[in-house]
Amino acid sequence: MSKYCFGVDVGGTTVKLGLFRTDGDLLDKWEIPTVTAEEGKAILPDIAKSILQKMEERRMEREDVIGVGIGVPGPVDSEGTIYRAVNLGWGVFNIKKELQTLLNMPVEAGNDANVAALGEVWQGGARGYEHVVMVTLGTGVGGGIIMGGRILPGAMGAAGEIGHINVNDEETIPCNCGNCGCMEQYVSATGVVRLAKQKLAESGRESVLRGTEVTAKDVWDAVKDGDLLAMEVAEEFGWYLGRTLGTIANVVNPEIFVIGGGVSKAGSILIDYIQKNFQKYAFKGCRGALFTLARLGNDAGIYGAAKMLID
Amino acid sequence: MSKYCFGVDVGGTTVKLGLFRTDGDLLDKWEIPTVTAEEGKAILPDIAKSILQKMEERRMEREDVIGVGIGVPGPVDSEGTIYRAVNLGWGVFNIKKELQTLLNMPVEAGNDANVAALGEVWQGGARGYEHVVMVTLGTGVGGGIIMGGRILPGAMGAAGEIGHINVNDEETIPCNCGNCGCMEQYVSATGVVRLAKQKLAESGRESVLRGTEVTAKDVWDAVKDGDLLAMEVAEEFGWYLGRTLGTIANVVNPEIFVIGGGVSKAGSILIDYIQKNFQKYAFKGCRGALFTLARLGNDAGIYGAAKMLID
Repeated sequence: MSKYCFGVDVGGTTVKLGLFRTDGDLLDKWEIPTVTAEEGKAILPDIAKSILQKMEERRMEREDVIGVGIGVPGPVDSEGTIYRAVNLGWGVFNIKKELQTLLNMPVEAGNDANVAALGEVWQGGARGYEHVVMVTLGTGVGGGIIMGGRILPGAMGAAGEIGHINVNDEETIPCNCGNCGCMEQYVSATGVVRLAKQKLAESGRESVLRGTEVTAKDVWDAVKDGDLLAMEVAEEFGWYLGRTLGTIANVVNPEIFVIGGGVSKAGSILIDYIQKNFQKYAFKGCRGALFTLARLGNDAGIYGAAKMLID
Repeated sequence: MSKYCFGVDVGGTTVKLGLFRTDGDLLDKWEIPTVTAEEGKAILPDIAKSILQKMEERRMEREDVIGVGIGVPGPVDSEGTIYRAVNLGWGVFNIKKELQTLLNMPVEAGNDANVAALGEVWQGGARGYEHVVMVTLGTGVGGGIIMGGRILPGAMGAAGEIGHINVNDEETIPCNCGNCGCMEQYVSATGVVRLAKQKLAESGRESVLRGTEVTAKDVWDAVKDGDLLAMEVAEEFGWYLGRTLGTIANVVNPEIFVIGGGVSKAGSILIDYIQKNFQKYAFKGCRGALFTLARLGNDAGIYGAAKMLID
């Protein structure tokens, strides 16, 4: 009986790999470097080699393994075609077919943010839910949408690009994507720092943040300590994110939002600021969505990747 | 061999019914009144009776019919449960099961806006596409989302409630839903009239719309005639709708948007105003979405309802 699967999460510098039992237990995890030279042509062969090595090490047979799931930093459609992955040097090709050929076993592929969302649904903060939107607040803002227990990739694998929703038509500073006023510019780790710096410059209010090299963590720590200026920043953060999640709820009507990424380490106080704006702006029929924090941290990707194989 | 199916579109005053061949031909269509008295308890029995009558009339056997699809004005989840339908007097119950019992044949149920979108995908403006968002610009603004060729209902059947996305945080006049600043307040037929009246009041500009009882059709006719004030209204309409469809593209990444409803009779000029804003605000990876006009008019509902039975 087949009862194992592998989950692979490809990042710009490191590939994370996990060996799972199909019931959800993570048995082993390890990393290999991501070799992006020559348009990243070694990445998939390196992954295949590492998996086959692990199987040999553990004396696993082909028939013990139901397959390999892989998440990558770029848009992947429902057929497993990736359209670009700038960080890896990849152009357009079918990841699923290529890795399948290298491994001679079933492969499923997805976008890393979508795959992480599936991980949180399988064994993390959204366990037990089928209609889920995950928001990852890191250096940028990523999103993953799970509907009916499955990843919603959209037409070209670009569904869930919620960090680039326009939330401020008056912004003049461009986002990394080229547009101006993307949500990412206000609620990512760098966005929160930017909001704090603006507030410090505009307001005469005293604050523990004054005269320091502000980080997103500093801002949220100050919020917890009752720093009034930091709380104004948190209000602004909550307005941008809560109102936009209200919009997203009107579009896909999730049961629950999962908040992950570095900024989410601030904890449940984040949700308080988000939720009061969400309640104000979401349509009545979509307002029942719950909020929770992600639980799997950096392992969400390997969990979700493995889960793609299991139905 | 079964080769027919029925599509039913329940409105507040009339139920539309259609008899289809499973290849998509509409063979017959007719209407019966919607009897909303006593919490609408006669509605499903009346529909069942009308279908059985039609089968008798045409000497069809049970085994000739693969089933009945029904669209209703309220949120319906993937199991066929409706959560409320104020216009019909309905509370929460499983439409699918109830109509199935009355007819003794397979039934599928969905929200009317979602079902209309499926109709346009099957035999209308979005034929040949699998990832589609339909926007219906009528008295209100409805939305329907098709992903992978299927209706996306969301958790509680409220996905696609795009008319109630907040697009103006400064609005003080409430929408019918209770919130303020919903997209519906600006781009529905009544919304366009409202924008025009505001513009007429604020601007000193001459216009054919001055001193008339303005309708949405008048506004778009004036736009086509080069009326500068009407064109300003169209710009505003295009900003509200184009920017918001950019947001929706970032969430579900459709291949195509279908614009339907009364306002869409203005024709392709509408799309020009929408698209230039869409192009500005959508994320690069989602910007390739096409725009088209709906083609089935009021029949979209019966088409989509029938299509729910066919895979």
